[in-house]
Amino acid sequence: MDARVKFDLVAWSGERLERVERALSDWVVADAPAGLGEAMRYAVLDGGKRLRPLLVLAACEAVDGNEEAALRAACAVELIHAYSLVHDDMPCMDNDVLRRGKPTVHVKYGQAQALLAGDALQALAFELLAPDGDAVPQAVQAALCRLLARAAGHAGMAGGQAIDLASVGCTLGESQLREMHRRKTGALLQASVMMGAACGATDAAARAGLAAYGAALGLAFQVVDDILDVTADSETLGKTVGKDAAHDKPTYVSLLGLERSSAFARELLSQALAALACAGLADTRALHALAIMVVDREK
Amino acid sequence: MDARVKFDLVAWSGERLERVERALSDWVVADAPAGLGEAMRYAVLDGGKRLRPLLVLAACEAVDGNEEAALRAACAVELIHAYSLVHDDMPCMDNDVLRRGKPTVHVKYGQAQALLAGDALQALAFELLAPDGDAVPQAVQAALCRLLARAAGHAGMAGGQAIDLASVGCTLGESQLREMHRRKTGALLQASVMMGAACGATDAAARAGLAAYGAALGLAFQVVDDILDVTADSETLGKTVGKDAAHDKPTYVSLLGLERSSAFARELLSQALAALACAGLADTRALHALAIMVVDREK
Repeated sequence: MDARVKFDLVAWSGERLERVERALSDWVVADAPAGLGEAMRYAVLDGGKRLRPLLVLAACEAVDGNEEAALRAACAVELIHAYSLVHDDMPCMDNDVLRRGKPTVHVKYGQAQALLAGDALQALAFELLAPDGDAVPQAVQAALCRLLARAAGHAGMAGGQAIDLASVGCTLGESQLREMHRRKTGALLQASVMMGAACGATDAAARAGLAAYGAALGLAFQVVDDILDVTADSETLGKTVGKDAAHDKPTYVSLLGLERSSAFARELLSQALAALACAGLADTRALHALAIMVVDREK
Repeated sequence: MDARVKFDLVAWSGERLERVERALSDWVVADAPAGLGEAMRYAVLDGGKRLRPLLVLAACEAVDGNEEAALRAACAVELIHAYSLVHDDMPCMDNDVLRRGKPTVHVKYGQAQALLAGDALQALAFELLAPDGDAVPQAVQAALCRLLARAAGHAGMAGGQAIDLASVGCTLGESQLREMHRRKTGALLQASVMMGAACGATDAAARAGLAAYGAALGLAFQVVDDILDVTADSETLGKTVGKDAAHDKPTYVSLLGLERSSAFARELLSQALAALACAGLADTRALHALAIMVVDREK
């Protein structure tokens, strides 16, 4: 009998989500001046699937890595994700008023505070990765900063958002759409996996396997996101649906249609699981289950 | 005869500014997608006094530190400064159209691209600090990330900007005004000094001396900034003058008047130089000359 069948992702996630929520609440301080801390906490706490933190922790466990480093990395990558949503929702970008079922940060606190809160969340992400003391080895701190900075910047998330901006109203080919998503959402999801791995020792085969797993999972996530934007309702999703079409944005659904998009997501899942199996790691059950969850999710 | 008299700051700066400009041009890549690279380069290159990079390099030389680390730190701190100006100029913040004698980034490239360029510049700053290879020791990489993240975030620059936002139209006491400036501009200037010092080995006395030097210099910079906003003309300054009063912002000039502000700047200079003299470092001539330049500058 396959041990994977018995792996309980809900129980595994539950314990880890508690740790992540507690750490985020401790580290995203309320006492930042002039309402800034309140806006930062609003943007981060009490919401979100925390997929990226779970990927960090699962990858760290697969390589038997440093737990303190992984918890910091898990929170840091979530802060980058949260800041990107705050800025992305602003009127000059997607102009969205609803996120995780609540008013967006700029609606609640004003645009200036939203801009600053996003900026401060990005800085805090890197601050978390480089603590005083030796609970996290200096080499791990440096590796985590390197991975996160690359994934967040022009070669990753910010670059993908620039392509997204420029592509409104355009017809993109499959390779251009893939390139946009690889940067915009894929880079940070893949970095979550690699940051978890950087908390422990890995050989080249493990790193290559995890990188391929992360790349396939990252793209699968976006394909499913495109599907849900068409098929889900706002209440389930906690954000405005149909906004890709409303903004005339190219998506996998507009390119391939619903059925072929679904098939593509399942093909990417197979690729992710195959790469994971080749990584030569002892216990990859959580990473395995998370990939399935990404493709099967309904929000 | 005092060796300081013979120190030629113009020659010292000229050689270092060339290195910094070349490094910035190499590292702020033009090939970031969809116009993002162009906006990032526009925000950073061909403008600015580069005071922060010069402070990093001067402090590194004072402790005989790692030159590659210092050049990266010098550029990183300038990228943080540059991104903060891009976001600060946006319509939801100061709504400024002129910076360094040129249209601001959002005027030239639109608000969405300006927002993204700022975000990508912040990420790039941390990317520069954590390069592959061993040209910069991992412990130095981690220390530089720690110092920069703290100075840029809620406890530093972003926090100061939040206070600034909240203080429009308010009367601040001297201690509140000092606290705002300590975070908003002082933290990054002080971090420049401490990052340079982190590129080499220092004892506690040197770190304390440099920290006090950086704090006094940081505040002096802002007092002089407040003075120049009243006394200089837009052409010399390369940015809109009189904007503090126009925005009804509390400044040292509005608090103390011109004459007492000037005297305060000179007192802070004395404090900075005294602290520097106590740091027990071999050659602090560049740091000494830079502090004088900060107070005597006309733009």
